[in-house]
Amino acid sequence: MITSPAHLRALAAAGEWTAPTAGVLDGHQQANLVIVPRSLAFEFLLYCTRNPKPCPVIAVTDPGDPVLRFGTTEADLRTTLPRYRVWRNGELVAEPTDITAYWQDDAVAFLLGCSHTFEGPLRAAGIPVAHTAPPVYITNIETTPAGPFSGPLLVSMRAVPGHLAATAVEITYRYPTGHGTPVHIGDPSVIGIESLSAPDFGPPPAIPPDSTPMFWACGVTPQLAISNTPYAITHYPGHMFVFDHTP
Amino acid sequence: MITSPAHLRALAAAGEWTAPTAGVLDGHQQANLVIVPRSLAFEFLLYCTRNPKPCPVIAVTDPGDPVLRFGTTEADLRTTLPRYRVWRNGELVAEPTDITAYWQDDAVAFLLGCSHTFEGPLRAAGIPVAHTAPPVYITNIETTPAGPFSGPLLVSMRAVPGHLAATAVEITYRYPTGHGTPVHIGDPSVIGIESLSAPDFGPPPAIPPDSTPMFWACGVTPQLAISNTPYAITHYPGHMFVFDHTP
Repeated sequence: MITSPAHLRALAAAGEWTAPTAGVLDGHQQANLVIVPRSLAFEFLLYCTRNPKPCPVIAVTDPGDPVLRFGTTEADLRTTLPRYRVWRNGELVAEPTDITAYWQDDAVAFLLGCSHTFEGPLRAAGIPVAHTAPPVYITNIETTPAGPFSGPLLVSMRAVPGHLAATAVEITYRYPTGHGTPVHIGDPSVIGIESLSAPDFGPPPAIPPDSTPMFWACGVTPQLAISNTPYAITHYPGHMFVFDHTP
Repeated sequence: MITSPAHLRALAAAGEWTAPTAGVLDGHQQANLVIVPRSLAFEFLLYCTRNPKPCPVIAVTDPGDPVLRFGTTEADLRTTLPRYRVWRNGELVAEPTDITAYWQDDAVAFLLGCSHTFEGPLRAAGIPVAHTAPPVYITNIETTPAGPFSGPLLVSMRAVPGHLAATAVEITYRYPTGHGTPVHIGDPSVIGIESLSAPDFGPPPAIPPDSTPMFWACGVTPQLAISNTPYAITHYPGHMFVFDHTP
Protein backbone atom coordinates (compact mmCIF):
# COMPACT_ATOMS: atom_id res chain seq x y z
CA MET A 1 0.00 0.00 0.00
CA ILE A 2 1.41 3.33 -1.12
CA THR A 3 0.91 5.91 1.60
CA SER A 4 2.28 9.11 0.04
CA PRO A 5 4.06 10.49 -3.01
CA ALA A 6 7.35 10.43 -1.03
CA HIS A 7 6.72 6.76 -0.29
CA LEU A 8 6.16 5.95 -3.97
CA ARG A 9 9.26 7.92 -4.99
CA ALA A 10 11.35 6.11 -2.37
CA LEU A 11 10.11 2.73 -3.61
CA ALA A 12 10.94 3.74 -7.19
CA ALA A 13 14.41 4.87 -6.11
CA ALA A 14 14.96 1.51 -4.42
CA GLY A 15 13.86 -0.32 -7.56
CA GLU A 16 10.84 -1.72 -5.72
CA TRP A 17 8.18 0.10 -7.77
CA THR A 18 8.54 -0.24 -11.56
CA ALA A 19 4.83 -0.27 -12.46
CA PRO A 20 2.52 2.39 -13.98
CA THR A 21 1.21 5.12 -11.70
CA ALA A 22 -2.36 5.46 -13.06
CA GLY A 23 -4.88 4.89 -10.29
CA VAL A 24 -2.17 5.33 -7.64
CA LEU A 25 -2.19 8.62 -5.70
CA ASP A 26 -4.40 10.15 -8.40
CA GLY A 27 -5.24 13.04 -6.12
CA HIS A 28 -1.65 14.26 -6.40
CA GLN A 29 -0.12 16.07 -9.35
CA GLN A 30 1.47 13.53 -11.65
CA ALA A 31 3.88 14.56 -14.36
CA ASN A 32 5.58 13.59 -17.58
CA LEU A 33 9.36 14.00 -17.73
CA VAL A 34 11.48 15.33 -20.59
CA ILE A 35 15.22 15.93 -20.23
CA VAL A 36 17.20 17.79 -22.91
CA PRO A 37 20.65 19.42 -23.00
CA ARG A 38 21.01 23.07 -21.92
CA SER A 39 21.75 24.02 -25.54
CA LEU A 40 18.19 23.03 -26.52
CA ALA A 41 16.42 24.08 -23.30
CA PHE A 42 15.11 27.36 -24.74
CA GLU A 43 13.71 25.68 -27.82
CA PHE A 44 12.09 22.91 -25.76
CA LEU A 45 10.54 25.36 -23.29
CA LEU A 46 9.30 27.36 -26.27
CA TYR A 47 7.82 24.16 -27.76
CA CYS A 48 5.94 23.66 -24.47
CA THR A 49 4.81 27.32 -24.43
CA ARG A 50 3.48 26.96 -27.97
CA ASN A 51 1.76 23.63 -27.20
CA PRO A 52 0.37 24.10 -23.69
CA LYS A 53 -2.28 21.37 -23.91
CA PRO A 54 0.12 18.44 -24.50
CA CYS A 55 2.98 20.12 -22.61
CA PRO A 56 1.78 22.11 -19.56
CA VAL A 57 4.97 23.09 -17.72
CA ILE A 58 4.87 22.55 -13.96
CA ALA A 59 8.57 22.77 -13.07
CA VAL A 60 12.00 23.05 -14.67
CA THR A 61 15.29 22.16 -12.99
CA ASP A 62 18.48 24.21 -12.98
CA PRO A 63 20.91 23.05 -15.70
CA GLY A 64 22.95 20.09 -14.46
CA ASP A 65 21.08 19.71 -11.17
CA PRO A 66 19.21 16.37 -11.02
CA VAL A 67 17.30 17.39 -7.89
CA LEU A 68 13.84 18.85 -8.38
CA ARG A 69 12.65 21.26 -5.69
CA PHE A 70 9.05 22.43 -6.00
CA GLY A 71 6.97 23.32 -2.98
CA THR A 72 7.50 20.49 -0.50
CA THR A 73 8.63 18.08 -3.23
CA GLU A 74 12.37 17.39 -3.28
CA ALA A 75 13.45 14.45 -5.40
CA ASP A 76 16.37 13.17 -7.43
CA LEU A 77 14.89 12.81 -10.90
CA ARG A 78 17.49 10.17 -11.85
CA THR A 79 15.85 7.54 -9.65
CA THR A 80 12.38 8.57 -8.44
CA LEU A 81 10.34 7.68 -11.53
CA PRO A 82 9.39 4.02 -11.98
CA ARG A 83 10.89 3.72 -15.46
CA TYR A 84 12.54 5.87 -18.14
CA ARG A 85 13.32 5.99 -21.83
CA VAL A 86 16.72 7.16 -23.12
CA TRP A 87 16.85 8.60 -26.65
CA ARG A 88 19.57 9.55 -29.15
CA ASN A 89 18.34 11.39 -32.26
CA GLY A 90 14.92 9.83 -31.81
CA GLU A 91 16.30 6.29 -31.43
CA LEU A 92 15.27 4.54 -28.24
CA VAL A 93 18.50 3.21 -26.72
CA ALA A 94 17.44 2.06 -23.24
CA GLU A 95 14.43 1.74 -20.94
CA PRO A 96 16.05 1.68 -17.51
CA THR A 97 14.53 2.14 -14.06
CA ASP A 98 17.40 4.47 -13.07
CA ILE A 99 19.12 7.05 -15.30
CA THR A 100 22.12 7.86 -13.13
CA ALA A 101 24.44 6.42 -15.78
CA TYR A 102 22.78 8.51 -18.50
CA TRP A 103 22.66 11.88 -16.70
CA GLN A 104 24.71 14.68 -18.33
CA ASP A 105 26.25 17.73 -16.66
CA ASP A 106 24.20 20.02 -18.93
CA ALA A 107 20.88 18.20 -18.53
CA VAL A 108 17.73 20.24 -17.90
CA ALA A 109 14.59 18.42 -16.75
CA PHE A 110 11.03 19.49 -17.54
CA LEU A 111 8.05 18.19 -15.56
CA LEU A 112 4.87 18.42 -17.64
CA GLY A 113 1.32 17.88 -16.39
CA CYS A 114 -0.51 14.59 -16.84
CA SER A 115 -4.12 13.57 -17.32
CA HIS A 116 -4.00 11.16 -14.38
CA THR A 117 -4.51 14.37 -12.43
CA PHE A 118 -8.14 14.77 -13.48
CA GLU A 119 -9.17 11.12 -13.50
CA GLY A 120 -10.08 11.14 -9.78
CA PRO A 121 -12.36 14.18 -10.20
CA LEU A 122 -13.95 12.59 -13.29
CA ARG A 123 -14.73 9.44 -11.30
CA ALA A 124 -16.08 11.51 -8.43
CA ALA A 125 -18.55 13.06 -10.90
CA GLY A 126 -19.81 9.61 -11.90
CA ILE A 127 -17.86 9.37 -15.15
CA PRO A 128 -16.50 5.85 -15.60
CA VAL A 129 -12.72 6.02 -16.06
CA ALA A 130 -10.55 2.90 -16.12
CA HIS A 131 -7.90 2.57 -13.43
CA THR A 132 -5.34 1.67 -16.08
CA ALA A 133 -3.54 4.01 -18.45
CA PRO A 134 -5.85 5.18 -21.28
CA PRO A 135 -5.29 4.24 -24.93
CA VAL A 136 -3.13 6.77 -26.80
CA TYR A 137 -3.32 7.61 -30.51
CA ILE A 138 -1.17 9.56 -32.96
CA THR A 139 -3.35 12.19 -34.68
CA ASN A 140 -3.10 14.09 -37.96
CA ILE A 141 -2.84 17.36 -35.98
CA GLU A 142 0.65 18.89 -36.08
CA THR A 143 2.03 20.57 -32.98
CA THR A 144 3.53 24.05 -33.37
CA PRO A 145 7.28 23.54 -33.88
CA ALA A 146 10.09 25.29 -31.98
CA GLY A 147 13.71 24.82 -33.02
CA PRO A 148 14.26 21.09 -33.71
CA PHE A 149 11.10 20.05 -31.85
CA SER A 150 8.10 19.13 -33.99
CA GLY A 151 5.72 16.28 -34.60
CA PRO A 152 2.13 15.11 -34.40
CA LEU A 153 -0.18 15.67 -31.45
CA LEU A 154 -0.86 12.51 -29.46
CA VAL A 155 -4.15 12.12 -27.62
CA SER A 156 -5.55 9.90 -24.91
CA MET A 157 -9.13 8.72 -25.31
CA ARG A 158 -11.89 8.11 -22.81
CA ALA A 159 -15.34 6.93 -23.89
CA VAL A 160 -17.88 8.94 -21.87
CA PRO A 161 -21.67 8.53 -21.74
CA GLY A 162 -23.06 11.28 -23.95
CA HIS A 163 -25.05 12.96 -21.18
CA LEU A 164 -21.86 13.30 -19.10
CA ALA A 165 -19.63 14.61 -21.91
CA ALA A 166 -20.25 18.27 -21.07
CA THR A 167 -19.52 17.54 -17.40
CA ALA A 168 -16.20 15.98 -18.42
CA VAL A 169 -15.33 19.20 -20.25
CA GLU A 170 -16.29 21.32 -17.25
CA ILE A 171 -14.17 19.23 -14.88
CA THR A 172 -11.09 19.02 -17.08
CA TYR A 173 -11.30 22.78 -17.72
CA ARG A 174 -10.27 23.19 -14.07
CA TYR A 175 -7.05 21.23 -14.65
CA PRO A 176 -4.78 23.03 -17.12
CA THR A 177 -1.93 20.98 -15.62
CA GLY A 178 -3.93 17.85 -16.47
CA HIS A 179 -3.98 18.80 -20.21
CA GLY A 180 -7.20 20.83 -19.71
CA THR A 181 -10.24 20.37 -21.95
CA PRO A 182 -10.42 17.87 -24.82
CA VAL A 183 -8.88 18.72 -28.19
CA HIS A 184 -11.61 16.75 -29.95
CA ILE A 185 -14.96 15.13 -29.13
CA GLY A 186 -16.61 12.68 -31.51
CA ASP A 187 -15.63 11.00 -34.77
CA PRO A 188 -12.03 9.73 -34.43
CA SER A 189 -11.44 9.79 -38.20
CA VAL A 190 -11.62 13.61 -38.19
CA ILE A 191 -8.29 13.71 -36.35
CA GLY A 192 -6.73 10.88 -38.31
CA ILE A 193 -7.51 7.92 -36.06
CA GLU A 194 -8.60 4.98 -38.24
CA SER A 195 -9.69 2.58 -35.52
CA LEU A 196 -10.21 3.14 -31.80
CA SER A 197 -9.53 -0.56 -31.25
CA ALA A 198 -5.94 -0.18 -32.52
CA PRO A 199 -4.31 2.45 -30.30
CA ASP A 200 -0.69 3.38 -30.97
CA PHE A 201 0.10 2.96 -27.27
CA GLY A 202 -1.76 1.07 -24.55
CA PRO A 203 -4.38 -1.66 -24.70
CA PRO A 204 -7.52 -1.50 -26.89
CA PRO A 205 -10.31 0.25 -24.99
CA ALA A 206 -13.82 -0.90 -24.24
CA ILE A 207 -16.29 1.40 -26.05
CA PRO A 208 -19.67 1.06 -24.33
CA PRO A 209 -22.77 1.70 -26.45
CA ASP A 210 -24.13 5.25 -26.17
CA SER A 211 -20.67 6.57 -25.25
CA THR A 212 -18.90 9.40 -27.01
CA PRO A 213 -15.12 9.26 -27.57
CA MET A 214 -13.38 12.25 -25.99
CA PHE A 215 -9.76 13.04 -26.83
CA TRP A 216 -7.35 14.89 -24.59
CA ALA A 217 -3.85 16.07 -25.52
CA CYS A 218 -1.30 13.56 -24.22
CA GLY A 219 2.04 14.04 -22.49
CA VAL A 220 3.66 11.39 -24.66
CA THR A 221 3.54 13.97 -27.50
CA PRO A 222 7.09 15.23 -26.80
CA GLN A 223 8.48 11.70 -27.17
CA LEU A 224 7.71 12.01 -30.89
CA ALA A 225 9.00 15.59 -31.03
CA ILE A 226 12.58 14.78 -29.97
CA SER A 227 13.70 12.92 -33.06
CA ASN A 228 16.21 15.66 -33.96
CA THR A 229 17.64 15.87 -30.44
CA PRO A 230 21.04 14.20 -29.90
CA TYR A 231 20.27 13.53 -26.22
CA ALA A 232 16.96 13.19 -24.46
CA ILE A 233 15.47 11.22 -21.60
CA THR A 234 11.75 10.84 -20.90
CA HIS A 235 9.57 8.88 -18.53
CA TYR A 236 8.29 5.52 -19.78
CA PRO A 237 4.63 6.04 -20.81
CA GLY A 238 2.30 5.69 -17.84
CA HIS A 239 5.19 5.64 -15.36
CA MET A 240 4.96 9.19 -14.07
CA PHE A 241 6.67 11.41 -11.56
CA VAL A 242 4.36 12.05 -8.59
CA PHE A 243 4.52 15.42 -6.81
CA ASP A 244 3.56 16.01 -3.18
CA HIS A 245 0.98 18.63 -4.09
CA THR A 246 -2.53 18.32 -5.47
CA PRO A 247 -3.34 20.34 -8.58
CA MET B 1 -9.30 57.73 -35.93
CA ILE B 2 -7.54 54.40 -35.64
CA THR B 3 -9.35 51.85 -37.74
CA SER B 4 -7.42 48.63 -37.07
CA PRO B 5 -4.36 47.20 -35.30
CA ALA B 6 -2.52 47.23 -38.65
CA HIS B 7 -3.39 50.92 -39.00
CA LEU B 8 -2.03 51.72 -35.52
CA ARG B 9 1.14 49.71 -36.18
CA ALA B 10 1.66 51.51 -39.51
CA LEU B 11 1.25 54.90 -37.82
CA ALA B 12 3.73 53.86 -35.12
CA ALA B 13 6.20 52.69 -37.78
CA ALA B 14 5.86 56.06 -39.54
CA GLY B 15 6.51 57.90 -36.26
CA GLU B 16 2.98 59.33 -36.35
CA TRP B 17 1.68 57.53 -33.25
CA THR B 18 3.88 57.84 -30.16
CA ALA B 19 1.11 57.91 -27.52
CA PRO B 20 -0.15 55.29 -25.05
CA THR B 21 -2.45 52.58 -26.37
CA ALA B 22 -4.86 52.28 -23.41
CA GLY B 23 -8.43 52.90 -24.55
CA VAL B 24 -7.40 52.41 -28.20
CA LEU B 25 -8.41 49.13 -29.86
CA ASP B 26 -8.99 47.62 -26.40
CA GLY B 27 -10.90 44.75 -27.95
CA HIS B 28 -7.66 43.51 -29.50
CA GLN B 29 -4.90 41.66 -27.71
CA GLN B 30 -2.34 44.18 -26.52
CA ALA B 31 1.09 43.12 -25.36
CA ASN B 32 4.18 44.05 -23.41
CA LEU B 33 7.52 43.61 -25.18
CA VAL B 34 10.77 42.23 -23.75
CA ILE B 35 13.83 41.60 -25.93
CA VAL B 36 16.86 39.73 -24.59
CA PRO B 37 19.88 38.05 -26.22
CA ARG B 38 19.62 34.40 -27.31
CA SER B 39 22.07 33.44 -24.53
CA LEU B 40 19.47 34.47 -21.93
CA ALA B 41 16.35 33.45 -23.84
CA PHE B 42 15.89 30.17 -21.93
CA GLU B 43 16.22 31.87 -18.56
CA PHE B 44 13.81 34.64 -19.54
CA LEU B 45 11.20 32.22 -20.90
CA LEU B 46 11.61 30.22 -17.69
CA TYR B 47 11.09 33.44 -15.69
CA CYS B 48 7.83 33.95 -17.60
CA THR B 49 6.80 30.32 -17.06
CA ARG B 50 7.41 30.68 -13.32
CA ASN B 51 5.58 34.02 -13.14
CA PRO B 52 2.61 33.59 -15.48
CA LYS B 53 0.46 36.34 -13.97
CA PRO B 54 2.85 39.25 -14.69
CA CYS B 55 4.39 37.54 -17.74
CA PRO B 56 1.79 35.59 -19.79
CA VAL B 57 3.62 34.56 -22.96
CA ILE B 58 1.68 35.11 -26.18
CA ALA B 59 4.43 34.86 -28.78
CA VAL B 60 8.21 34.52 -29.11
CA THR B 61 10.23 35.39 -32.23
CA ASP B 62 12.97 33.32 -33.81
CA PRO B 63 16.44 34.44 -32.67
CA GLY B 64 17.61 37.39 -34.76
CA ASP B 65 14.36 37.78 -36.68
CA PRO B 66 12.69 41.15 -35.91
CA VAL B 67 9.47 40.15 -37.65
CA LEU B 68 6.70 38.73 -35.51
CA ARG B 69 4.31 36.33 -37.22
CA PHE B 70 1.33 35.21 -35.16
CA GLY B 71 -1.99 34.35 -36.72
CA THR B 72 -2.74 37.16 -39.15
CA THR B 73 -0.37 39.55 -37.36
CA GLU B 74 2.89 40.22 -39.19
CA ALA B 75 4.90 43.15 -37.90
CA ASP B 76 8.46 44.38 -37.60
CA LEU B 77 8.92 44.75 -33.85
CA ARG B 78 11.67 47.36 -34.34
CA THR B 79 9.17 50.01 -35.43
CA THR B 80 5.56 49.02 -34.75
CA LEU B 81 5.35 49.92 -31.07
CA PRO B 82 4.79 53.60 -30.22
CA ARG B 83 7.82 53.87 -27.93
CA TYR B 84 10.57 51.70 -26.44
CA ARG B 85 13.09 51.55 -23.63
CA VAL B 86 16.66 50.35 -24.19
CA TRP B 87 18.52 48.90 -21.18
CA ARG B 88 22.12 47.92 -20.39
CA ASN B 89 22.57 46.10 -17.08
CA GLY B 90 19.41 47.68 -15.75
CA GLU B 91 20.44 51.20 -16.79
CA LEU B 92 17.97 52.98 -19.04
CA VAL B 93 20.04 54.28 -21.97
CA ALA B 94 17.38 55.44 -24.46
CA GLU B 95 13.64 55.80 -24.96
CA PRO B 96 13.32 55.86 -28.75
CA THR B 97 10.28 55.42 -30.97
CA ASP B 98 12.26 53.07 -33.25
CA ILE B 99 14.84 50.46 -32.17
CA THR B 100 16.35 49.62 -35.54
CA ALA B 101 19.69 51.03 -34.40
CA TYR B 102 19.59 48.94 -31.21
CA TRP B 103 18.56 45.58 -32.70
CA GLN B 104 21.14 42.79 -32.31
CA ASP B 105 21.59 39.72 -34.52
CA ASP B 106 20.95 37.44 -31.53
CA ALA B 107 17.86 39.28 -30.21
CA VAL B 108 14.80 37.27 -29.18
CA ALA B 109 11.52 39.13 -28.62
CA PHE B 110 8.82 38.09 -26.16
CA LEU B 111 5.27 39.43 -26.39
CA LEU B 112 3.54 39.22 -23.00
CA GLY B 113 -0.14 39.81 -22.30
CA CYS B 114 -1.46 43.13 -21.04
CA SER B 115 -4.35 44.18 -18.83
CA HIS B 116 -5.70 46.59 -21.44
CA THR B 117 -7.13 43.37 -22.85
CA PHE B 118 -9.75 43.03 -20.12
CA GLU B 119 -10.62 46.69 -19.62
CA GLY B 120 -13.25 46.69 -22.37
CA PRO B 121 -15.06 43.66 -20.89
CA LEU B 122 -14.88 45.26 -17.41
CA ARG B 123 -16.51 48.43 -18.76
CA ALA B 124 -19.14 46.37 -20.57
CA ALA B 125 -20.05 44.86 -17.18
CA GLY B 126 -20.61 48.33 -15.70
CA ILE B 127 -17.31 48.53 -13.86
CA PRO B 128 -15.87 52.04 -14.17
CA VAL B 129 -12.36 51.82 -15.65
CA ALA B 130 -10.41 54.91 -16.69
CA HIS B 131 -9.45 55.22 -20.35
CA THR B 132 -5.90 56.11 -19.31
CA ALA B 133 -3.18 53.73 -18.15
CA PRO B 134 -3.79 52.58 -14.56
CA PRO B 135 -1.47 53.51 -11.67
CA VAL B 136 1.30 50.96 -11.10
CA TYR B 137 2.98 50.11 -7.78
CA ILE B 138 6.04 48.13 -6.71
CA THR B 139 4.99 45.51 -4.14
CA ASN B 140 6.82 43.60 -1.43
CA ILE B 141 6.03 40.34 -3.26
CA GLU B 142 9.07 38.77 -4.91
CA THR B 143 8.71 37.08 -8.27
CA THR B 144 10.18 33.58 -8.68
CA PRO B 145 13.69 34.04 -10.12
CA ALA B 146 15.16 32.27 -13.14
CA GLY B 147 18.82 32.71 -14.03
CA PRO B 148 19.67 36.44 -13.75
CA PHE B 149 16.01 37.50 -13.79
CA SER B 150 14.50 38.46 -10.42
CA GLY B 151 12.77 41.33 -8.71
CA PRO B 152 9.55 42.54 -7.12
CA LEU B 153 6.09 42.00 -8.52
CA LEU B 154 4.53 45.17 -9.91
CA VAL B 155 0.77 45.61 -9.87
CA SER B 156 -1.76 47.85 -11.55
CA MET B 157 -4.66 49.07 -9.42
CA ARG B 158 -8.29 49.69 -10.22
CA ALA B 159 -10.74 50.92 -7.56
CA VAL B 160 -13.96 48.96 -8.04
CA PRO B 161 -17.32 49.40 -6.27
CA GLY B 162 -17.45 46.66 -3.63
CA HIS B 163 -20.56 45.02 -5.04
CA LEU B 164 -18.81 44.64 -8.43
CA ALA B 165 -15.50 43.30 -7.10
CA ALA B 166 -16.50 39.64 -7.52
CA THR B 167 -17.69 40.37 -11.06
CA ALA B 168 -14.30 41.91 -11.83
CA VAL B 169 -12.67 38.66 -10.67
CA GLU B 170 -15.02 36.56 -12.78
CA ILE B 171 -14.33 38.63 -15.89
CA THR B 172 -10.57 38.80 -15.54
CA TYR B 173 -10.47 35.04 -14.85
CA ARG B 174 -11.40 34.64 -18.52
CA TYR B 175 -8.30 36.56 -19.64
CA PRO B 176 -5.12 34.73 -18.61
CA THR B 177 -3.36 36.75 -21.34
CA GLY B 178 -4.65 39.89 -19.62
CA HIS B 179 -2.84 38.94 -16.35
CA GLY B 180 -5.89 36.94 -15.17
CA THR B 181 -7.41 37.43 -11.73
CA PRO B 182 -6.11 39.94 -9.15
CA VAL B 183 -3.11 39.05 -7.00
CA HIS B 184 -4.57 41.07 -4.11
CA ILE B 185 -7.88 42.71 -3.18
CA GLY B 186 -8.10 45.16 -0.28
CA ASP B 187 -5.60 46.84 2.05
CA PRO B 188 -2.64 48.05 -0.06
CA SER B 189 -0.25 47.98 2.91
CA VAL B 190 -0.45 44.18 3.02
CA ILE B 191 1.51 44.03 -0.24
CA GLY B 192 3.88 46.85 0.70
CA ILE B 193 2.10 49.82 -0.90
CA GLU B 194 2.27 52.76 1.52
CA SER B 195 0.01 55.17 -0.31
CA LEU B 196 -2.31 54.64 -3.26
CA SER B 197 -1.94 58.34 -4.08
CA ALA B 198 1.77 57.92 -4.77
CA PRO B 199 2.08 55.27 -7.52
CA ASP B 200 5.52 54.30 -8.73
CA PHE B 201 4.38 54.73 -12.34
CA GLY B 202 1.44 56.65 -13.77
CA PRO B 203 -0.76 59.38 -12.34
CA PRO B 204 -2.38 59.26 -8.87
CA PRO B 205 -5.76 57.55 -9.14
CA ALA B 206 -9.18 58.72 -8.04
CA ILE B 207 -10.42 56.45 -5.23
CA PRO B 208 -14.21 56.82 -5.03
CA PRO B 209 -15.83 56.20 -1.64
CA ASP B 210 -17.20 52.67 -1.21
CA SER B 211 -14.67 51.34 -3.71
CA THR B 212 -12.28 48.48 -3.07
CA PRO B 213 -8.75 48.58 -4.46
CA MET B 214 -8.04 45.58 -6.69
CA PHE B 215 -4.49 44.74 -7.76
CA TRP B 216 -3.55 42.87 -10.91
CA ALA B 217 -0.05 41.66 -11.83
CA CYS B 218 1.54 44.14 -14.24
CA GLY B 219 3.55 43.64 -17.39
CA VAL B 220 6.07 46.26 -16.32
CA THR B 221 7.37 43.68 -13.81
CA PRO B 222 10.07 42.37 -16.19
CA GLN B 223 11.49 45.89 -16.57
CA LEU B 224 12.69 45.60 -12.95
CA ALA B 225 13.83 41.99 -13.46
CA ILE B 226 16.40 42.74 -16.17
CA SER B 227 18.95 44.61 -14.05
CA ASN B 228 21.53 41.84 -14.51
CA THR B 229 21.04 41.63 -18.27
CA PRO B 230 23.71 43.26 -20.45
CA TYR B 231 21.23 43.95 -23.24
CA ALA B 232 17.47 44.33 -23.12
CA ILE B 233 14.78 46.31 -24.88
CA THR B 234 11.21 46.74 -23.63
CA HIS B 235 8.16 48.72 -24.60
CA TYR B 236 7.70 52.08 -22.90
CA PRO B 237 5.04 51.60 -20.18
CA GLY B 238 1.54 52.00 -21.59
CA HIS B 239 2.82 52.02 -25.18
CA MET B 240 1.95 48.49 -26.17
CA PHE B 241 2.15 46.25 -29.20
CA VAL B 242 -1.35 45.63 -30.61
CA PHE B 243 -2.12 42.27 -32.22
CA ASP B 244 -4.77 41.70 -34.88
CA HIS B 245 -6.57 39.10 -32.80
CA THR B 246 -8.93 39.44 -29.87
CA PRO B 247 -8.08 37.45 -26.75
